Amino acid sequence: MQPEPGFADRVRASFARQRVMALIGARLARVEPGSVEIELPFREELTQQHGFLHAGIVSAIADSAGGYAAYTLMPPGHSVLAVEYKVNFLAPAEGARFLARGRVLRAGRTLTVCELQVQAFGGAQGTLIAHGTQTCIGLPAKPGVAPG
Amino acid sequence: MQPEPGFADRVRASFARQRVMALIGARLARVEPGSVEIELPFREELTQQHGFLHAGIVSAIADSAGGYAAYTLMPPGHSVLAVEYKVNFLAPAEGARFLARGRVLRAGRTLTVCELQVQAFGGAQGTLIAHGTQTCIGLPAKPGVAPG
Amino acid sequence: MQPEPGFADRVRASFARQRVMALIGARLARVEPGSVEIELPFREELTQQHGFLHAGIVSAIADSAGGYAAYTLMPPGHSVLAVEYKVNFLAPAEGARFLARGRVLRAGRTLTVCELQVQAFGGAQGTLIAHGTQTCIGLPAKPGVAPG
Amino acid sequence: MQPEPGFADRVRASFARQRVMALIGARLARVEPGSVEIELPFREELTQQHGFLHAGIVSAIADSAGGYAAYTLMPPGHSVLAVEYKVNFLAPAEGARFLARGRVLRAGRTLTVCELQVQAFGGAQGTLIAHGTQTCIGLPAKPGVAPG
Repeated sequence: MQPEPGFADRVRASFARQRVMALIGARLARVEPGSVEIELPFREELTQQHGFLHAGIVSAIADSAGGYAAYTLMPPGHSVLAVEYKVNFLAPAEGARFLARGRVLRAGRTLTVCELQVQAFGGAQGTLIAHGTQTCIGLPAKPGVAPG
Repeated sequence: MQPEPGFADRVRASFARQRVMALIGARLARVEPGSVEIELPFREELTQQHGFLHAGIVSAIADSAGGYAAYTLMPPGHSVLAVEYKVNFLAPAEGARFLARGRVLRAGRTLTVCELQVQAFGGAQGTLIAHGTQTCIGLPAKPGVAPG
Repeated sequence: MQPEPGFADRVRASFARQRVMALIGARLARVEPGSVEIELPFREELTQQHGFLHAGIVSAIADSAGGYAAYTLMPPGHSVLAVEYKVNFLAPAEGARFLARGRVLRAGRTLTVCELQVQAFGGAQGTLIAHGTQTCIGLPAKPGVAPG
Repeated sequence: MQPEPGFADRVRASFARQRVMALIGARLARVEPGSVEIELPFREELTQQHGFLHAGIVSAIADSAGGYAAYTLMPPGHSVLAVEYKVNFLAPAEGARFLARGRVLRAGRTLTVCELQVQAFGGAQGTLIAHGTQTCIGLPAKPGVAPG
């Protein structure tokens, strides 16, 4: 899986336009060819009824991590969109911070399939709290639409 | 599917404890036996890189709608947790408001399976933007843990 | 969703080339624009360890029903392939016959998303035993490869 | 993940009762704690319309591999059932033989989540053709029902 030159800058520029990532306090932690990590510190305002991180927020960072992992391998000017994803929640989303990782399993001409994993960290050691897969589509740029 | 008396009040009380729903501006729109709807007005701070609602936010309201649809059919004192879900994104999440509906397909002793749908509304007519399924587990209350 | 003329004949011709359908004894029961049904009588040689129809066989008829539902809306000469699917098994697959239905939820330029349902029949009334979604891709014909 | 003594014998006995595995020609290739492999030689009678292995057959061996991976970690007398699964098809299912592997990601009290992978082999090197996840439930034995 060969990345296109400048892939990390394009990921960072696009991530900066995902306003919801700023709202929840998520940041890009790592950008490599075919693999992206997003970190999210715990906040009470992101919780569900038991005080754990809401499944939708767990999914949000997993979805962005996967989409950008796919994006690292796409030609400049392309846009990436998630077509579908599936997530299993393996353990309660409790911890001081969370790390979502998207990893490309297969990069095709049109579709890219990623593995999604989210770990929760209290101390040093992480617990796998979510595992899933995601299908992304790469779209050539349209005039007037910013890629990404 | 017979609901337990007081089911709507229990759903409303639990939803009020989902702090992330307040953060994003979502509200319970309808609570019926085996079916729950959650409404979310568009906000720019919830968007992804193209200005559409982020897939994680679409998923968050779908997940809560499905979880509470399952919860309407559970005995008082039980808690509900999503075990997994799968969502297909059918169209860009653009519109002035969004309506997520969870509907119980099968309520079992341990597991409940729900259909998830999210519609986007610009004018009067909605567009189906997301469709999925979710598996929830019902857990008897533990001492010291608020149900829901 | 406008079908292309001759869609039903193309579905029947392609189905006849799915040799596994003959092996298990499945037949096309209904072909309509955006909707296909496949019927399978119970056979002991299709069972899992408890004597129910194996989940893979339930999935096989659901997958073909969905793929052909998508195919009814594709231009002549195209091929259809399932990209992914997700199935919830709602009840034991027991009965004298099974009916799988694929129904197009959204037909896009490249991708088509279908709902999959399988019912089991003992007497007259069916039981919903499986529910899922499927993503299909439509591919223009390649020389030397039969479409379908 | 500690297996129960005799786990491999229980897997083999249950697999032998899955009549559909004999019909398609699949065999247990490896049984380890939390991991099971099933091998299937190619047969023309298992194909779809392009001559590849049908997605339902790919899924059948993946489903059994995952279910038995979960089963290796369950107490004697329990039964295992797949609740749901999701499979992405990454490449055409062509080859002389296929190897499905189920691997336990998390074994809970009630639910076990497995990763499913299927490889196709022409020569020595395999191609990953399918990747998915599966949720299984473990059920205590009922009188008169053979476990497994």
